[in-house]
Amino acid sequence: MALADIKPIQWIDGKVRIIDQTRLPAELVYVDMDDYVAMAEAICQLRVRGAPQLGIAAAYGLALGARRIKANGREEFLSKLSQVSKVLASTRPTAVNLFYALRRMESAAGKARTIADIQQALLDEAKRIADEEDAANRQLGKFGAELVGDGATILTHCNAGALATGGYGTALGVIYAAREAGKGVQVFADESRPLLQGSRLTAWELMQVGIPVTLITDSMYGHFLISGKIDLDVVGADRIAANGDVANKIGTYSVAVLAMENGVPFYVAAPVSTVDLSLASGDQIPIEERSPEEVTHLRGVPIAPAKVKVANPAFDVTPHHYVTAIITEKGVIREPYQERLRRVA
Amino acid sequence: MALADIKPIQWIDGKVRIIDQTRLPAELVYVDMDDYVAMAEAICQLRVRGAPQLGIAAAYGLALGARRIKANGREEFLSKLSQVSKVLASTRPTAVNLFYALRRMESAAGKARTIADIQQALLDEAKRIADEEDAANRQLGKFGAELVGDGATILTHCNAGALATGGYGTALGVIYAAREAGKGVQVFADESRPLLQGSRLTAWELMQVGIPVTLITDSMYGHFLISGKIDLDVVGADRIAANGDVANKIGTYSVAVLAMENGVPFYVAAPVSTVDLSLASGDQIPIEERSPEEVTHLRGVPIAPAKVKVANPAFDVTPHHYVTAIITEKGVIREPYQERLRRVA
Repeated sequence: MALADIKPIQWIDGKVRIIDQTRLPAELVYVDMDDYVAMAEAICQLRVRGAPQLGIAAAYGLALGARRIKANGREEFLSKLSQVSKVLASTRPTAVNLFYALRRMESAAGKARTIADIQQALLDEAKRIADEEDAANRQLGKFGAELVGDGATILTHCNAGALATGGYGTALGVIYAAREAGKGVQVFADESRPLLQGSRLTAWELMQVGIPVTLITDSMYGHFLISGKIDLDVVGADRIAANGDVANKIGTYSVAVLAMENGVPFYVAAPVSTVDLSLASGDQIPIEERSPEEVTHLRGVPIAPAKVKVANPAFDVTPHHYVTAIITEKGVIREPYQERLRRVA
Repeated sequence: MALADIKPIQWIDGKVRIIDQTRLPAELVYVDMDDYVAMAEAICQLRVRGAPQLGIAAAYGLALGARRIKANGREEFLSKLSQVSKVLASTRPTAVNLFYALRRMESAAGKARTIADIQQALLDEAKRIADEEDAANRQLGKFGAELVGDGATILTHCNAGALATGGYGTALGVIYAAREAGKGVQVFADESRPLLQGSRLTAWELMQVGIPVTLITDSMYGHFLISGKIDLDVVGADRIAANGDVANKIGTYSVAVLAMENGVPFYVAAPVSTVDLSLASGDQIPIEERSPEEVTHLRGVPIAPAKVKVANPAFDVTPHHYVTAIITEKGVIREPYQERLRRVA
């Protein structure tokens, strides 16, 4: 399978077709949705996931919702549309791309006159968000590729690849662009417990496109960093505060500290839409707490004592001083982040 | 269940009775063995495990083997005994306790005259090793308990508890002793992928004895350390080099770095038999590489793409400068380790 064949989200004939990522790697299953409620559920259940893709999914979800709204006039329509938007916004709290996309969509709706115009404007805007996302990823990939040496071994965490975006990737986009630039690369993917996006998605995706990948557990990245096996780390982001603090999949902070301790660069690859200038620092980023069953069960099989108390934060915050650079479609940004992020975001 | 009721290894009527730790926490199953081959297999498959307990298991295994040897005279007997010892020694390469116990056993055998005397001497020595292990754990627990504040929240990795030893524990022994001294304690146990000794064994063991425990994944300990939730870390050890470098379950190094980065003490609790003065530093400790299936499958269920390349080192080495102190039955040892370990080991 080529990278271009991995199409995690598409608009086809009035429906949104997604890859159900909870079924990977066992099965590659596409699901068609013509209803915003189905999209909201798919987001909650992580059938569709990845910060950049959450923006696209929410946008398409709102476009789907708009097609079903029955209203007497523009005002009632916009009021009902706002309700749909609220449902989509309530799915997941951490990735800012979701809220960014919904704001853009509501603004596009506000500019159109008739109900039919609004419906069309929403679909157009959703497609534009998807296209821009793809273009941003490809551009940031090119910038990031310059940081990757020929023959590099790269550690990544969770999945910030084609499956997490419209189809190119942020962290993995950097790796794809490095390879397209003719560089040899290989990847260490940690499994990213509890939901195993690293083993289920990143390892699968890299195997599809033929990039050598070694799967390890989250307990192992420190060992491979101190062993000198890793040349650089690159991860995605769910939200970046104004000072450069990065919220990303739980475990990212540990990777960053261990990278710094071993003199390995730690890069964050994310489109500018991930930057949230309204938050001064990372401790203001809301961290989603998910169900204990994600830790105590795997594919329905219990792997911990019954009734054990569990903590399950889905994200952590990496303070900006661990971040070597943030790779965006507007260039590679380094300290001082405060000043330089404001210029691009 | 009280702590005294957790009997992971016992000699009963010419047989060794172990708790099959691969069946926990779903079932508490005891297995009786009267054959050293069964013991060697149980060690390889981690039915019996934990560095201190591996010494006891190997010793009892040799005592079992000695009872079955058919030989014409002492010389032939000792030669066959040496073969049995080699089989037991070939099971797992990292924990030094196993080799230490076998050396003691062979030395005890060498001092006895008749075959019957040797068989008895081996059984006596194995029981002595088990008893000394228990006494050492209780003594190091007392020393360690002085380092634990009342109301402390303690992070531990893997299982260095009753299940890993004769029945008291090293890292968890410190916690048990702190509670016996009247201190309130609670524990964060990480699951310790790939084999989940943290969730399956440590969480189970702590729940049995009524110590509050919160289960997290290995990707989360950094988050809880930087969040200020953890007062101290305590882990066990499989081998400690002359300079204080510590080999322990994969992930230990990451915990140690993250603890230091956040100003949290990182203690290693281990009997003196874990110290291997023959190795100058940790990079000389052999690290066991285990089967890829431990990473790609859980209880037989595939959780990664078929044929993915996997790395699966079972241990890592924590350089001594991350270790706040090593808690032994001969006292709490701090830098300079080189000099002070030589005095006790």
